[in-house]
Amino acid sequence: MKEVKNKQILFRGFITGVPKETDMELREGTVGLKIPEGIKGALVKNIYLSCDPYMRGRMRENYDSYIPPFSPGSVLKGFGIGRVVESNDEFFKPGDVVSGFTGWEEYSLIENTEQLKKIEVDEKIPLSYHLGLLGMPGFTAYVGFYEICSPKKGDRVFVSAACGAVGQLVGQLAKLHGCYVVGSAGTKQKVDLLMNKFGFDEAFNYKEEKGLVSTMRRYFPEGIDIYFDNVGGPTLDAALLNMRINGRIAICGMISQHSVSSVEGIHNLSALIPKRVKMQGFLQSDHLHLFPQFLDCVSDLYKQGKIAYLEDMHHGLEIAPKAFVGLFSGQNVGKQVVCVSPE
Amino acid sequence: MKEVKNKQILFRGFITGVPKETDMELREGTVGLKIPEGIKGALVKNIYLSCDPYMRGRMRENYDSYIPPFSPGSVLKGFGIGRVVESNDEFFKPGDVVSGFTGWEEYSLIENTEQLKKIEVDEKIPLSYHLGLLGMPGFTAYVGFYEICSPKKGDRVFVSAACGAVGQLVGQLAKLHGCYVVGSAGTKQKVDLLMNKFGFDEAFNYKEEKGLVSTMRRYFPEGIDIYFDNVGGPTLDAALLNMRINGRIAICGMISQHSVSSVEGIHNLSALIPKRVKMQGFLQSDHLHLFPQFLDCVSDLYKQGKIAYLEDMHHGLEIAPKAFVGLFSGQNVGKQVVCVSPE
Repeated sequence: MKEVKNKQILFRGFITGVPKETDMELREGTVGLKIPEGIKGALVKNIYLSCDPYMRGRMRENYDSYIPPFSPGSVLKGFGIGRVVESNDEFFKPGDVVSGFTGWEEYSLIENTEQLKKIEVDEKIPLSYHLGLLGMPGFTAYVGFYEICSPKKGDRVFVSAACGAVGQLVGQLAKLHGCYVVGSAGTKQKVDLLMNKFGFDEAFNYKEEKGLVSTMRRYFPEGIDIYFDNVGGPTLDAALLNMRINGRIAICGMISQHSVSSVEGIHNLSALIPKRVKMQGFLQSDHLHLFPQFLDCVSDLYKQGKIAYLEDMHHGLEIAPKAFVGLFSGQNVGKQVVCVSPE
Repeated sequence: MKEVKNKQILFRGFITGVPKETDMELREGTVGLKIPEGIKGALVKNIYLSCDPYMRGRMRENYDSYIPPFSPGSVLKGFGIGRVVESNDEFFKPGDVVSGFTGWEEYSLIENTEQLKKIEVDEKIPLSYHLGLLGMPGFTAYVGFYEICSPKKGDRVFVSAACGAVGQLVGQLAKLHGCYVVGSAGTKQKVDLLMNKFGFDEAFNYKEEKGLVSTMRRYFPEGIDIYFDNVGGPTLDAALLNMRINGRIAICGMISQHSVSSVEGIHNLSALIPKRVKMQGFLQSDHLHLFPQFLDCVSDLYKQGKIAYLEDMHHGLEIAPKAFVGLFSGQNVGKQVVCVSPE
C-alpha cells in the first residue's frame, strides 16, 4: 500500500478565551492511500478548508452544545472541499468532488459519508464558493434573512460584520428584496467594499464612530425594521435603542459568542417592549429542507451578476491556524478559506 | 353649583431612578359637581385606582415612548374605576360604573370618554378585579401567554414575579393549558401562595437561592419551553442558560425597565442561538380586539372557581404614593389597588 506524507493540524486542548495559534499545532504524519479493511467510507484529498467562527465553540469543554467539542490531541475538523481518491461507498467514486465535514489535513478518511455532498463543478462559479456563498455561511444568510427576519419591501435593514461570510450576502439579498440596507464593519477597506462592491445604501466603520446609538439614528432616522446581528455587544445594545415598532432581530453568528457574552453585558433589552421587537436565535441546520432551493436561487443570482462574493484565500495547511485566529479580530476580508492543494 | 373637596395626588417632576413617595404630593382642592360649559365628558367619582409598574415610565422625561410622560405639577393618571356623577356624553349616565384612564383624585372630569368602558356589575366578581384580573394586567397575561408564548400542552413554563398582578394569571392559565409551571417570587409568603392558592407545580424564593442557574436546572432538568419574564436582570440571564430548543421568552412588564437595564446587563444572549430561542416584547394594547374574548373567558373561569386572584387593597387616596412606590420593591402581595371611596 502506497504511503504518502499527510500534514495535519491538531487541536491541543480546551480553551476559554479567544483562540490563539498556539492552541493548534502542525504534525507531519503519513497516510496509506487505501481504505483500511473493515472500514466503509471515502478517502479524500482535501482542496479547500473553511475557517468559521462557530468552530471556536468546539474548542471549549462544553458538552451541552448543539455540536460536541473537539477531542484534545486530535485533528481539527471543519467544512471542506476535496476530491475522492478511493471509496468503497457506492455513492462516491474516485475523482468526485465533494463538500462536507473533513479534517484539517491533506488527506482525510471520511466514514461518515452521509453528510458528504457531491459538487457539480460549474466553471462559472469558483469551487471554493461551496464553502461560502453556496455553503453554510451563504445558507445561514439565506435562512436568517428570509425565514427569521420576515422581510418586506421597503424595510430598513441593518447588518453588522457586513463584509463577513454571512453579512455580505444578507445585505445583497436585502437590496434585491427592495430594502434600504446599511452595514457596519471595522476597517475603511471593508466600508468601501460594502458601498462599492456589494451595493449597500450606506456603510460605516464602527471603530470610528463616537456613539453607536447616534450613528444608527443618523442612518435610520425612522428606526430599524430588521437588524441582522453578527456581533452582539455594544452594536446590539445600540441597535436595540434604534428599532422600529414590530422590528425583528436575527441573532446569528457564533463570532458573537464572545461579544454578546462580553463583560459589559446588554443593557437595553427593555426596549423590546415598547417597540414590540422579536429577537430570535437560529441555526441554519434546522432548515436544510430549503438547501436545494437556496443553491438554485443563489447560484443563479451569482451567474446573472446580481450578487458578488468576496473570499479571503490563504494558501497552505500551515497557515490555517493563523487564518482561523484572524477571524476573531476581523483580519479576514470576506469569507476565510485555506487552499491546501490545487484543484 | 355645588363645590366639594377634591383631594388629588400631584406628580412633582421627572425622575431618573426608582420612584419615591416624595416624587408625588397631596393637594387638597375643590371641584364643582357640574361639567363646565363647553366641555363634553363625564364627571366621575373615583372608587378604585390601580398602581401599575408601567406608570414609572411616564414619570421620566421620555417623549419617545409609546405613552407620553406625565406633566410635572399635574394630577397623576392611571387606570381606575368610578361612578358617573354627571355626564353630557350620550353613552354614560349618572350612576354608571366605568373603568378607564382617570386621575389620582376623588373626582375626575374625563373628556376623553371613548377610552371609558361601562362595567356590568356582577356580584360574583369583585368590582376592583376590573383593574387586575379582568383589566390591563389580566389581559397582559392572557395576550402574552396565548399570543406571544405559543403554548402547547406539556410545555415547561417559568414565570417570574409570579405572585404579581400579571404573573398569577399567567401561571394559572398555563396550568389549565396542561403545562408544568414553576414561579419565582421574593418572599416565603408569596411562594406559599403560588403553591397553595394558585396551584403552581413548584415555586421558589429567588432571594434565598445561591445560584439561579442551578436553581432553574433543578426545577427544569430538561429545560424551559416558555419563560414569561416580568423582571429581567439576573433572573432573565439565568433563564437564558436554561432554555430548551425552540423556547420562547415573553418580555413583559414595565417593572423590568429597571432591572433589564440594570448596571450588570444581560450576558447570556448568545444562548439564543444554539437553542433557537425566540424572545419577544409586546404590549397588550396591540391586541385589544381580543379583549371581549378575554373578558368572557377569564370571568367564566373565575366564576367556575378554576382560577383565583389576589389583590393587595389599600384604603385612602393619601396612601396611593406609598402603595405605588412599594411595587418596585415587591411590597405588594398580588395586584396593588387603592380604594378611594366606597362602592
